[in-house]
Amino acid sequence: MNRRRAIALAGIGVVGAGAAASAAALLRDDHPATAGASGAVEFYGEQQAGIVTLAQDRLHFVAFDVVTKSRDRLVEMLREWTEAAARMAAGKDAGLIGAVDGIPEAPPDDTGEALGLPPSGLTLTIGFGPSLFRNADGVDRFGLAAQRPAALADLPRFPGDALDPKISGGDLCVQACANDPQVAVHAIRNLARIGFGTVSVRWSQLGFGRTSSTSTAQATPRNLFGFKDGTANLKAEEEGLLRDHLWVQPGDGPSWMEGGSYSVTRKIRMLVETWDRTPLAEQEAIVGRAKGSGAPLGGKDEFDEPDFAVKGEDGEPTIAEVAHVRLAHPDQNGGARLLRRGYNFVDGSDGLGRLNAGLFFIAYQRDPRKQFVPVQTALARNDVMNEYIRHVSSGLFACPPGVREKGDFWGRALFG
Amino acid sequence: MNRRRAIALAGIGVVGAGAAASAAALLRDDHPATAGASGAVEFYGEQQAGIVTLAQDRLHFVAFDVVTKSRDRLVEMLREWTEAAARMAAGKDAGLIGAVDGIPEAPPDDTGEALGLPPSGLTLTIGFGPSLFRNADGVDRFGLAAQRPAALADLPRFPGDALDPKISGGDLCVQACANDPQVAVHAIRNLARIGFGTVSVRWSQLGFGRTSSTSTAQATPRNLFGFKDGTANLKAEEEGLLRDHLWVQPGDGPSWMEGGSYSVTRKIRMLVETWDRTPLAEQEAIVGRAKGSGAPLGGKDEFDEPDFAVKGEDGEPTIAEVAHVRLAHPDQNGGARLLRRGYNFVDGSDGLGRLNAGLFFIAYQRDPRKQFVPVQTALARNDVMNEYIRHVSSGLFACPPGVREKGDFWGRALFG
Repeated sequence: MNRRRAIALAGIGVVGAGAAASAAALLRDDHPATAGASGAVEFYGEQQAGIVTLAQDRLHFVAFDVVTKSRDRLVEMLREWTEAAARMAAGKDAGLIGAVDGIPEAPPDDTGEALGLPPSGLTLTIGFGPSLFRNADGVDRFGLAAQRPAALADLPRFPGDALDPKISGGDLCVQACANDPQVAVHAIRNLARIGFGTVSVRWSQLGFGRTSSTSTAQATPRNLFGFKDGTANLKAEEEGLLRDHLWVQPGDGPSWMEGGSYSVTRKIRMLVETWDRTPLAEQEAIVGRAKGSGAPLGGKDEFDEPDFAVKGEDGEPTIAEVAHVRLAHPDQNGGARLLRRGYNFVDGSDGLGRLNAGLFFIAYQRDPRKQFVPVQTALARNDVMNEYIRHVSSGLFACPPGVREKGDFWGRALFG
Repeated sequence: MNRRRAIALAGIGVVGAGAAASAAALLRDDHPATAGASGAVEFYGEQQAGIVTLAQDRLHFVAFDVVTKSRDRLVEMLREWTEAAARMAAGKDAGLIGAVDGIPEAPPDDTGEALGLPPSGLTLTIGFGPSLFRNADGVDRFGLAAQRPAALADLPRFPGDALDPKISGGDLCVQACANDPQVAVHAIRNLARIGFGTVSVRWSQLGFGRTSSTSTAQATPRNLFGFKDGTANLKAEEEGLLRDHLWVQPGDGPSWMEGGSYSVTRKIRMLVETWDRTPLAEQEAIVGRAKGSGAPLGGKDEFDEPDFAVKGEDGEPTIAEVAHVRLAHPDQNGGARLLRRGYNFVDGSDGLGRLNAGLFFIAYQRDPRKQFVPVQTALARNDVMNEYIRHVSSGLFACPPGVREKGDFWGRALFG
């Protein structure tokens, strides 16, 4: 039985699927991690899926180096990737022949580990890194240098950065999000398989727990400091804010990015063992929120606006000048907002008796120069939380608009 | 709202929970990865949970070095661990005070990232490594050397082993399985927090997709070669086989292990990129099964017994002499059976353009000398699959019987 047949059979069990969906809906508020819808997210559209899409529970993110010198070969791969991505988002095999209906003498055109699994909300989102336009040696390998948006300016070095170049950057990235990690891993692996000889995996990151909501319908999850994270995130329902802060608008730069967005990724190691030995009151002072409710200090409810003016009996601000919530707040950063879409990670241990754990931060925005860069500059300079975190990898990518219909492909407007 | 209160509230939503359970049951056969029951698995019992327990979808496995010289301190930690493990398995905070009801001046006694999440089928299973009884320098640190079971003999070096000692061995291990990875990670982290100063994390491994079934009620999942794995696994329903092959029996060795079992872990890197370029027929010949159905070659159904005598038109055995299914079969290994409980992993990339992916193999058994060792010896010598895999880490642990009731603790019969 191949995956397509499994999907068809699943379609027959309408009652079962309905029960699952209603159970998922009932669970959603209290149970972000396993509510996972098993259905498909539409691949085609004005914008790429995987940005404002209801944040799925699992992530496999990969950055690729382009190893061919041929623009034609790169474009051909992007066409093949787009077709495979649309098929996998619909819960089908990556290739037309499949893993098990194949020609015995040829390698299967799907790797098979997702056979029988439903679409699981899979989204695949592509981005183009600065090095695709001009590499580290200044070479315009693919005749794209003139098309590089000014907003895709290399990020500055922030105070405290401890970046490992081997797990930073990349010519291309693909973000796979799904409610089943096997489906996300399968998708990335099949794109790497299709790209063999054209691209090579530069780095890759699994995330197991979403740390932001992208909709008012989702409960705010907790990061590995045990705090609710992303309460003030941009959300899918905020159309005006998304236009102003998320999507590239006409006149912002080269037209091929209109309707796209820029992503910044930061792998943030958290020194959880040190954090866990910090008193509760100190943890809350550093974050600026209560650990239980997520309410800003001095407030009652998670979604109360933080009041930065209020002072305690000691005359000091209730939310400290260096509290994370104050430093990151739009009011302190010229109104800058981000759509965050990060995930918790644990990558084994660090050889020093500690878990290698933290947050794989992903944020989408209209212009990193006006959004991520000023916010991160303020945080890197003053945030007391820096004692407990290390930024170890960084990525910046221009994510083009969506693929409108079958035949269109990722980056068509860029490659012309 | 703390976790306990969240659980209490969840209890009110009986209809919702019922719908979720029935949806999970309906999905189970076709959808092993997200069917995840959110309920609790009983912690107390004759045997430890997490061995024959219906295999959960996610794993966090950790090996610890004991860093104290004090037997009393080690025993005290095992008491604390046991109490915390029982609480967490029931969906409660690791400590009595919790993450958010705590004393402001003290660190929270729960790290908080599982607040609001249900028990998610969490099981915690402890094991004692050979080095706990006598360390690498031959020192009997805790007066346990005389209690070391003969069955806990160091594994031999197998042909092709490429073991990294930094991610092998360990004085203690804890296997956390759950249907929500955040719950499994939370449990390991809190045990590490409680053990601070007594134990230190030696290595740790996340797994995202179970690769074996432990019950006839579970569908057989697929490994990263795209094949169904563990079809012939020992299953919870096979009581006679479990007595003969899984649980340590009276007279097998020191009485403290009666009702326990031995685990062997092997981190097996799979060279998936090479595998993906191998023809379908060759993949199937190497495994000895059809990729789609999982049926043994020459058979029709996944659960057909392989017929090793049948030959093809060319006079060669339909299942090759060196096929994995033949070499691993009990008939070829003196009847040896294992209860496998492995998980797929992807640990980023390897710096050479490839995913660092594979299988974290876990097998439970009555005596590794008669089960894992002969089977692995045969595989290491002859299995053609060895071209596509590397064993990079190894662990061996004596997993004692269950904790019978509150007040009892992990390893009580060993430490007396």
